[in-house]
Amino acid sequence: MSDTKTALVVSAHSADFVWRAGGAIALHAAQGWKVHIVCLSFGERGESAKLWRQSGMTMDKVKTDRRREAEEAAGILGASVEFLDIGDYPMRADLDVVFHLAKVYRELRPSFVLSHSLKDPYNFDHPLATHVAQEARVVAQAHGHDPEVPVIGAPPVFLFEPHQPEQCEWKPELFLDISSVWEKKQAAFETMRAQEHLWEYYTRVGLQRGAQATRNSDFKIKYAEAYQRVFPHVTQGTLA
Amino acid sequence: MSDTKTALVVSAHSADFVWRAGGAIALHAAQGWKVHIVCLSFGERGESAKLWRQSGMTMDKVKTDRRREAEEAAGILGASVEFLDIGDYPMRADLDVVFHLAKVYRELRPSFVLSHSLKDPYNFDHPLATHVAQEARVVAQAHGHDPEVPVIGAPPVFLFEPHQPEQCEWKPELFLDISSVWEKKQAAFETMRAQEHLWEYYTRVGLQRGAQATRNSDFKIKYAEAYQRVFPHVTQGTLA
Amino acid sequence: MSDTKTALVVSAHSADFVWRAGGAIALHAAQGWKVHIVCLSFGERGESAKLWRQSGMTMDKVKTDRRREAEEAAGILGASVEFLDIGDYPMRADLDVVFHLAKVYRELRPSFVLSHSLKDPYNFDHPLATHVAQEARVVAQAHGHDPEVPVIGAPPVFLFEPHQPEQCEWKPELFLDISSVWEKKQAAFETMRAQEHLWEYYTRVGLQRGAQATRNSDFKIKYAEAYQRVFPHVTQGTLA
Amino acid sequence: MSDTKTALVVSAHSADFVWRAGGAIALHAAQGWKVHIVCLSFGERGESAKLWRQSGMTMDKVKTDRRREAEEAAGILGASVEFLDIGDYPMRADLDVVFHLAKVYRELRPSFVLSHSLKDPYNFDHPLATHVAQEARVVAQAHGHDPEVPVIGAPPVFLFEPHQPEQCEWKPELFLDISSVWEKKQAAFETMRAQEHLWEYYTRVGLQRGAQATRNSDFKIKYAEAYQRVFPHVTQGTLA
Amino acid sequence: MSDTKTALVVSAHSADFVWRAGGAIALHAAQGWKVHIVCLSFGERGESAKLWRQSGMTMDKVKTDRRREAEEAAGILGASVEFLDIGDYPMRADLDVVFHLAKVYRELRPSFVLSHSLKDPYNFDHPLATHVAQEARVVAQAHGHDPEVPVIGAPPVFLFEPHQPEQCEWKPELFLDISSVWEKKQAAFETMRAQEHLWEYYTRVGLQRGAQATRNSDFKIKYAEAYQRVFPHVTQGTLA
Amino acid sequence: MSDTKTALVVSAHSADFVWRAGGAIALHAAQGWKVHIVCLSFGERGESAKLWRQSGMTMDKVKTDRRREAEEAAGILGASVEFLDIGDYPMRADLDVVFHLAKVYRELRPSFVLSHSLKDPYNFDHPLATHVAQEARVVAQAHGHDPEVPVIGAPPVFLFEPHQPEQCEWKPELFLDISSVWEKKQAAFETMRAQEHLWEYYTRVGLQRGAQATRNSDFKIKYAEAYQRVFPHVTQGTLA
Repeated sequence: MSDTKTALVVSAHSADFVWRAGGAIALHAAQGWKVHIVCLSFGERGESAKLWRQSGMTMDKVKTDRRREAEEAAGILGASVEFLDIGDYPMRADLDVVFHLAKVYRELRPSFVLSHSLKDPYNFDHPLATHVAQEARVVAQAHGHDPEVPVIGAPPVFLFEPHQPEQCEWKPELFLDISSVWEKKQAAFETMRAQEHLWEYYTRVGLQRGAQATRNSDFKIKYAEAYQRVFPHVTQGTLA
Repeated sequence: MSDTKTALVVSAHSADFVWRAGGAIALHAAQGWKVHIVCLSFGERGESAKLWRQSGMTMDKVKTDRRREAEEAAGILGASVEFLDIGDYPMRADLDVVFHLAKVYRELRPSFVLSHSLKDPYNFDHPLATHVAQEARVVAQAHGHDPEVPVIGAPPVFLFEPHQPEQCEWKPELFLDISSVWEKKQAAFETMRAQEHLWEYYTRVGLQRGAQATRNSDFKIKYAEAYQRVFPHVTQGTLA
Repeated sequence: MSDTKTALVVSAHSADFVWRAGGAIALHAAQGWKVHIVCLSFGERGESAKLWRQSGMTMDKVKTDRRREAEEAAGILGASVEFLDIGDYPMRADLDVVFHLAKVYRELRPSFVLSHSLKDPYNFDHPLATHVAQEARVVAQAHGHDPEVPVIGAPPVFLFEPHQPEQCEWKPELFLDISSVWEKKQAAFETMRAQEHLWEYYTRVGLQRGAQATRNSDFKIKYAEAYQRVFPHVTQGTLA
Repeated sequence: MSDTKTALVVSAHSADFVWRAGGAIALHAAQGWKVHIVCLSFGERGESAKLWRQSGMTMDKVKTDRRREAEEAAGILGASVEFLDIGDYPMRADLDVVFHLAKVYRELRPSFVLSHSLKDPYNFDHPLATHVAQEARVVAQAHGHDPEVPVIGAPPVFLFEPHQPEQCEWKPELFLDISSVWEKKQAAFETMRAQEHLWEYYTRVGLQRGAQATRNSDFKIKYAEAYQRVFPHVTQGTLA
Repeated sequence: MSDTKTALVVSAHSADFVWRAGGAIALHAAQGWKVHIVCLSFGERGESAKLWRQSGMTMDKVKTDRRREAEEAAGILGASVEFLDIGDYPMRADLDVVFHLAKVYRELRPSFVLSHSLKDPYNFDHPLATHVAQEARVVAQAHGHDPEVPVIGAPPVFLFEPHQPEQCEWKPELFLDISSVWEKKQAAFETMRAQEHLWEYYTRVGLQRGAQATRNSDFKIKYAEAYQRVFPHVTQGTLA
Repeated sequence: MSDTKTALVVSAHSADFVWRAGGAIALHAAQGWKVHIVCLSFGERGESAKLWRQSGMTMDKVKTDRRREAEEAAGILGASVEFLDIGDYPMRADLDVVFHLAKVYRELRPSFVLSHSLKDPYNFDHPLATHVAQEARVVAQAHGHDPEVPVIGAPPVFLFEPHQPEQCEWKPELFLDISSVWEKKQAAFETMRAQEHLWEYYTRVGLQRGAQATRNSDFKIKYAEAYQRVFPHVTQGTLA
């Protein structure tokens, strides 16, 4: 265990981490954190419409393209990324996925974890990814799981913003000012050439959350990302 | 406006602030904060059973006793206290109360506000106190209210723990380690000689919330107080 | 205080207690309970459409008619009834209403209380009636309110079924078999000649709730009334 | 009663109707509907920050300015507007307000009603406006209220979008395509010179809701407004 | 793709579609729609009590009987029906079921989908059926799933009424007038000779929902079915 | 079927039944009930930290130790216990588990069932155990499941208290006075030598719930256990 602080991002598809948590990733990376992203799939079936419209497209080619984009985006944000390639639309995760993630938790020993909303009627892969990320966290806390490897503590879990927040029963409980790294987030999502229609959408999300962050504080914030908490926050300092 | 940081506590009855927020008050006071408590009533009708069992008791004498206890408790915690004496069981608050509290907000300029849960089927004075505290906060933000006095920003509001949390639809979202000031909190609530049966109850609350705070962090915490947030937290730093 | 067990029903309008709680009233009355009904209004403006369609109708005549019907219905069910005549559509309740109800609580010392659902977007008088009934209950528990009169304990409050349950966020948590007194309930609501269109509606409600009660037990129940609880049930016996 | 269809908008402050429902107003007006707006206040204290920053500003001047802006905006949208001038921050509504609105309901006989979200921790005037709008609707349905004037039916109530939807527990249940009248909405809100900072914010809201409307249908929609329903929709036609 | 409009019904057991959606099916069929019903099981274990009370009954015979009844009912309603025979009490659905349903979606291209409530503590097959129906809908939208077959758009999903609505956290958001086809619905459920006790129950449901539909509109409706929406409604027309 | 009343407890791990339901078990056993406990696992991986800290510990030895403790505890409480040994952290349950539990239901014919909360973000084995317990209950009600064995009725299900109630969205709806058997519960949990840190925690839970039970009744109760109901209560007697 080094002194470097670490964070873990569990993303259902290869681009989710960019739209939804790119700012948080870049912000922590810029401060010297090691941020590691696990993409459970490439989003090859459900989130690659533009690629599939090209003639002669194959599953392998879609995966290769999506992987390259995601690696490029992770690089821009300053994070490492791995792909479990478990398939999407619909996603299914067996025990191996849980155990692999538990291993990642114990090796990385993250100070916090980012994943999807608990519900999403537009995309059932998203809540599944969060469920697996949370189950693996609990397994990594269990002394009887791989007893020779030290257990982890209780890293907080933050749920990043889904595409249609109210329909996903997701609620912003924490605004993170990402203005200082906005250009990196923008550069990262512009690598997603297959999803160009989302660039403007997520730029507006950043601006709206920035305006709301301003209204909920005495700061002036241009761009923000919003997160929901899973667990209570614990503080030994002051309340504000 | 001095450099001293400030906090505001709005308490329906004269003892609520001790049981529910005594730790937070003492903790911030110990760090040099000015903490000001507004008690809307003395709890003279509804929370002074033991006094009323004494023969020859009068309303004035109950109020005097309750005031003395509350002032003593506030002193131990290191806070100032004032009493609006608007009556209890049932409490009613007219516009004067809202405007007085708005004035307090603008003078004190608190960094945060503490008050009751949003619902309480056992005690309707509690949600009323919170409602008034919140309405006054919004009035104090309005440029057209006493336009010559500077408006306030957006101090966060934390809801302290009600007596029966689940029945009040209240949920702990933040645990504050109060171990370092536990003795002050204990000394403060022991001034409440009319409510001796609650001493043990709230000692156990402190221990249970401490154990839960430990489980939700990598700290070892003996005593904690729990709070629910009203507004999203805004941060310009890291997530953890 | 005699040995007779007692119950209190707080009804916004003069007929509510019949449709929604007539079975419970008759059932307890039949077992020797004293059941007392407080009608906050006659429903003279909002629930007397048929009367107002008669030519030459006046407010006084409507009230007189509605009172007579309600007294007749209460008599059939075996309960006493009083009318506070505070107006309806919209209803407003000042402190006098709360204090009067608190006095009723202390005199009657009910073993349980029945009132309306906590929400009702079709009729704001209903949640107001429940709010007042609950506030008065808490006042009656306060040692400093009329200190010479003994306080009450903690009678459970049951919320009877609104006209459109799901829209009122009301949920049946307790089914009461009212088959043995169904004829009394039917006779009582047939006194409501101004609301004939509801006879069939509430007969079907009784049958549906009966069928559901059967499905949730090992009893065979023809007619039932459904109630939501406000407070947890406390038992010193067994769980079933 | 003419053949012209009508709609009622109840707005807490003088500008709310523009940001939140300007599209719906213009769309129906463009189709020949009479849309009538009731502003309960001018937003003179709480929503006129820019005016109050001018030296020598008085309450009267603020009201006059805000009224002029709102009238201009209503004119652009094609609606009539009236102001009840009951004050804001905090707003209080007595029975006169309810009865006046009930009169408006009976005269206008609206096919639908628009008002604020049921909760808003940033602005308690908003839920109060909706509560009053709903209470007045129920009073207007009561045969005993002004018995000589015909009662109204059951017009649906739609809640327009608050500034921070998730914090207000508001959920979009209906997207209305307002692309065809977007220019009118934009022109209307640009009359709000005191709130210039909101122009971009609400342009982005329109685009985000448009993108979401597209995702929830087989239409291509650029700008949309979102609404929550209070009552179930009733149809005699098909489901889609 | 022809001009005929289509609808899809996903029913956990062979009779669910009759009790819960028979009116909607008949109504659309009567207007020339092609309505297709997929029964995931015959309800052979859990919903055939009366058959199992006959001596010498076998699983095959129960299935045959239930299939015959359901086919007869579908015929009366004017719909086609297929049976996946995946078993019930408890139901389990593997990927084949999801893919088969996705194929049905793409072939049928329904304008809307009907299925069960999201929760049902009395019957876990019901929420499973809805989950599978929704997952398949998302798969059918994925360009990478069977890329040579055109994807579908975003048909709305309506959840029909469970047996005990409040316990299933189901809420009516849409009332459909089914008076014109009531006789067909009645004839259809009378084919369910094994569940005769439900005939009266669902007749009363139809009447209660009809009365409620009347109260929520300016129509006079005798029989209605109620539905909950999963997704927001999108309209390019007027609000009412 | 004998005259002895019976109850079933489904516990995810070998100690859950002691902390959460030990009082209810002992209370009913003391009144002559047969109470049977099914432990789905030994909690060998996730709830045996102290054992795993011993050198040379093996999975078999942990299971043996935990089984011995649980059997001893069950004996003290007066109940029988069996272990399904399906593994923990994470737990998975296949159809065999459901069918075995269904068999237990039909043999035991319990008057009520106890299991875990419906949600628990700290421990996903807990809600899984409840889900399986509920699915098996429904299977045991199905006439087509093992048709030669009589089906069961509708025993109520009570959810015992999780470690952090508010985070699990669990709400106490029923307080059971366990003062008379407190010493047995204490003796039982003191057999859990691997989890000594919980002894004080659960003693305080018992005292807090006792104090709350007192506040919600006219009884004086020292120790209580709290339960949430899954199904509505049905009564043929009185309401209180």
